[in-house]
Amino acid sequence: MIKPRTPPGIMELLPREQIAFQRMLDVIRRNYERFGFLPVETPVFELSDVLLTKSGGETERQVYFVQSTGALANAAESAEKGLPELALRFDLTVPLARYVAEHEHALTFPFRRYQMQRVYRGERAQRGRFREFYQCDIDVIGKDALSIRYDAEVLAVIHAVFSELRIGRFAVQLNNRRFMRGFFEAQGVADPQQQALVLREVDKLDKRGADYVRETLLGPDFGLPAEAVERILAFVEVRSTSHADALAQLDAVLAEAGEGASESLRSGAAELREVLELVKALGVPENAYCLNFSIARGLDYYTGTVYETTLLDHPQIGSICSGGRYEDLASHYTKSKLPGVGISIGLTRLFWQLREAGLIDGIAESSVQAMVALMDEVAMPHSLDIARRLRAGGINTEVQMEPKKIGKQFQYAAKAGIRFVVLAGEDELARGVVAVKDLLREQQFEVARDELASTLQVELEQARVMAR
Amino acid sequence: MIKPRTPPGIMELLPREQIAFQRMLDVIRRNYERFGFLPVETPVFELSDVLLTKSGGETERQVYFVQSTGALANAAESAEKGLPELALRFDLTVPLARYVAEHEHALTFPFRRYQMQRVYRGERAQRGRFREFYQCDIDVIGKDALSIRYDAEVLAVIHAVFSELRIGRFAVQLNNRRFMRGFFEAQGVADPQQQALVLREVDKLDKRGADYVRETLLGPDFGLPAEAVERILAFVEVRSTSHADALAQLDAVLAEAGEGASESLRSGAAELREVLELVKALGVPENAYCLNFSIARGLDYYTGTVYETTLLDHPQIGSICSGGRYEDLASHYTKSKLPGVGISIGLTRLFWQLREAGLIDGIAESSVQAMVALMDEVAMPHSLDIARRLRAGGINTEVQMEPKKIGKQFQYAAKAGIRFVVLAGEDELARGVVAVKDLLREQQFEVARDELASTLQVELEQARVMAR
Repeated sequence: MIKPRTPPGIMELLPREQIAFQRMLDVIRRNYERFGFLPVETPVFELSDVLLTKSGGETERQVYFVQSTGALANAAESAEKGLPELALRFDLTVPLARYVAEHEHALTFPFRRYQMQRVYRGERAQRGRFREFYQCDIDVIGKDALSIRYDAEVLAVIHAVFSELRIGRFAVQLNNRRFMRGFFEAQGVADPQQQALVLREVDKLDKRGADYVRETLLGPDFGLPAEAVERILAFVEVRSTSHADALAQLDAVLAEAGEGASESLRSGAAELREVLELVKALGVPENAYCLNFSIARGLDYYTGTVYETTLLDHPQIGSICSGGRYEDLASHYTKSKLPGVGISIGLTRLFWQLREAGLIDGIAESSVQAMVALMDEVAMPHSLDIARRLRAGGINTEVQMEPKKIGKQFQYAAKAGIRFVVLAGEDELARGVVAVKDLLREQQFEVARDELASTLQVELEQARVMAR
Repeated sequence: MIKPRTPPGIMELLPREQIAFQRMLDVIRRNYERFGFLPVETPVFELSDVLLTKSGGETERQVYFVQSTGALANAAESAEKGLPELALRFDLTVPLARYVAEHEHALTFPFRRYQMQRVYRGERAQRGRFREFYQCDIDVIGKDALSIRYDAEVLAVIHAVFSELRIGRFAVQLNNRRFMRGFFEAQGVADPQQQALVLREVDKLDKRGADYVRETLLGPDFGLPAEAVERILAFVEVRSTSHADALAQLDAVLAEAGEGASESLRSGAAELREVLELVKALGVPENAYCLNFSIARGLDYYTGTVYETTLLDHPQIGSICSGGRYEDLASHYTKSKLPGVGISIGLTRLFWQLREAGLIDGIAESSVQAMVALMDEVAMPHSLDIARRLRAGGINTEVQMEPKKIGKQFQYAAKAGIRFVVLAGEDELARGVVAVKDLLREQQFEVARDELASTLQVELEQARVMAR
């Protein structure tokens, strides 16, 4: 006998939780499709030499390799030292790059794809760190060029997804790497690597406080002038409070730079302005987005717009959806220049965090909407016929197949989160009706057998409307 | 520069095909849920010692093992010879057994789960053989016992799935291993291993013909009496032609056995009879199921009901959905006795076969239902507003963001399979209307901007109804 158990770092859910998780996946997918993104799935493993084009890096140290039984035996015999042929994907971006480069001539650009699959990282075992987790990504990939307008559309997608997910108030924090570069250049920090170091210090504001960061930037490691340090500290504190305020904040930075404003600063500000204007035209409400000049994201990857998304009532959760604009997706695989903009939702971790914060409703309704109770053995064909009608009416229905006390059957339905229990005893069958117990409203009613499905449809639709 | 490519034995789809594949997944899932099955997902890898409880076997020789970068380095240094810690699942049945045993006390039995995930086998590279493929499974697991009634329900699920998939006429072929055993015992073939050998010969009927099989069974390897051989050959040719015929075929076998009918034959026939009666009560039409006394399936696993499903117009495709009743799911992991019944659809292979047979519509409609064309740059905010309204109305909508000739925009929509192109030029905007080109019906109409979404909803709903 072997103890049944999963590997560490895995999130496996019980059915009730899986239903809640699946609903989140469905909402994300529905909204991705609503905005015209097309589905892509890639294999879980890629050829190692294709996947691992860059050497070094934290992510690559976490790669899982895959070997067939035969290859494993061969390697043991011949003491081969090369890498195994296959490796599990560690994100969806490298597979996207490979996919777009491989199928370049069969795709139409701008290519808009969504992809919702699991990825694998050999993380250290730790609470809340997963070795297998879902990423839910969208990207728009252009050929040679890609309009800034897509950066606004991507923000509107984030808004649509998190509005429908109903996990609380949120805001998309917006910034632009070019704009930041221009600003830092104006403060005399022209070298990109120096900018990265300054930003790393700035990142410590929350933990260490402004005085600590001020000291460091004034001190021997950086030696920045006091005026520049104050301007940097003021800059990274900017959070716009409305659409008009966002535009005003951009104007203020440009005005301060005056005639000497660099090309980076001007064009970055112009991009931010266009994104803001189009986001508004797309109907995203003002309280769902703001400028946040401290958002930087992966410094060696993003080149323009960057996004983070935070739950306003749960800031400790950090960014729940991040991304941005990059200059070239697939330079390792093709000479074509493929700029893009995209975002990723790490759903496994988000689900875990929401559950920890008590925001996942543990008593969510089941995906099963009705249960036909078994009153007595002879009624079985009737039960099956009632279930058939319910299913034909689009209602997810379970039938009690085995004789059990009726009290037990109700207990089961209540525990499972099934809303309607349908009863058809001898008396009801004789009168062409069924009795329905609505466990949500705690009431019972009778309905003609022919009208059962449509009646429950109406009730379920009402509940859906009320949930909105 | 590295050539972008996927490993051999992988099916990767272009977006248009992926949409068709996704629709099949959606239909399967919807029908599984309609019958009250609950979702389960398990990790792609399991602990090797948990996954590989049985040694030997074709499947286990095809297992892929997984190693983290660190484990790989350690193994190389220390020349460890043990199996890697992790292995990719090769089916969904072993993970289900592990899941049910691990979570036994948190689950309610009978436990009805569906699971639609990819599995991995190191198959020899060969056309139509995949190393990564989807399985779409349902199982009902009982504790200690499980009513035969679920065997009928599972057949009804198969019927519901393939009716909605619309891939042609099909029939679920039904048999029962206990019934078969009883029949062979009556022919003097009592030893189960001998039965298996006889069945293997019988399996050659299609390829080698009845004379070849007759000779073999009469010959020295088997030495069966001529009368028994003729009865066996007649038995395995049975295909019922209607519900009444199915019941008559059962009666005929019992009548022939007479008083000497074994317990196996009687109880197997009783099970088949009950399944047939309940399948009828569940509203499955008579032409969708039949008895086929040649169906055996995995002889060491199934113990009662067995199913295969064939496309009547494409018999060369073989069984597209198979399964049956087993006695104990998880004896390796728990002392609890967990009988079950289940089926599996190998969707990747089925999709490939349907595509090969020309049954996948290459010009399927896109998941994108409407495209807002870009008439001129200044109209951009209007485009975005129109798109917002369409999306709020539940219509998947793409916006042309970059200036392109209008002819090119139409070409793109046609190639992508997008049905509606929405045009809002200066003139239309002034009049509060938009022009819509319906690429399916090849007609153009004008509609008030406020009524656009509802108008397209009606058109799309009509198309859905007509497609049924």
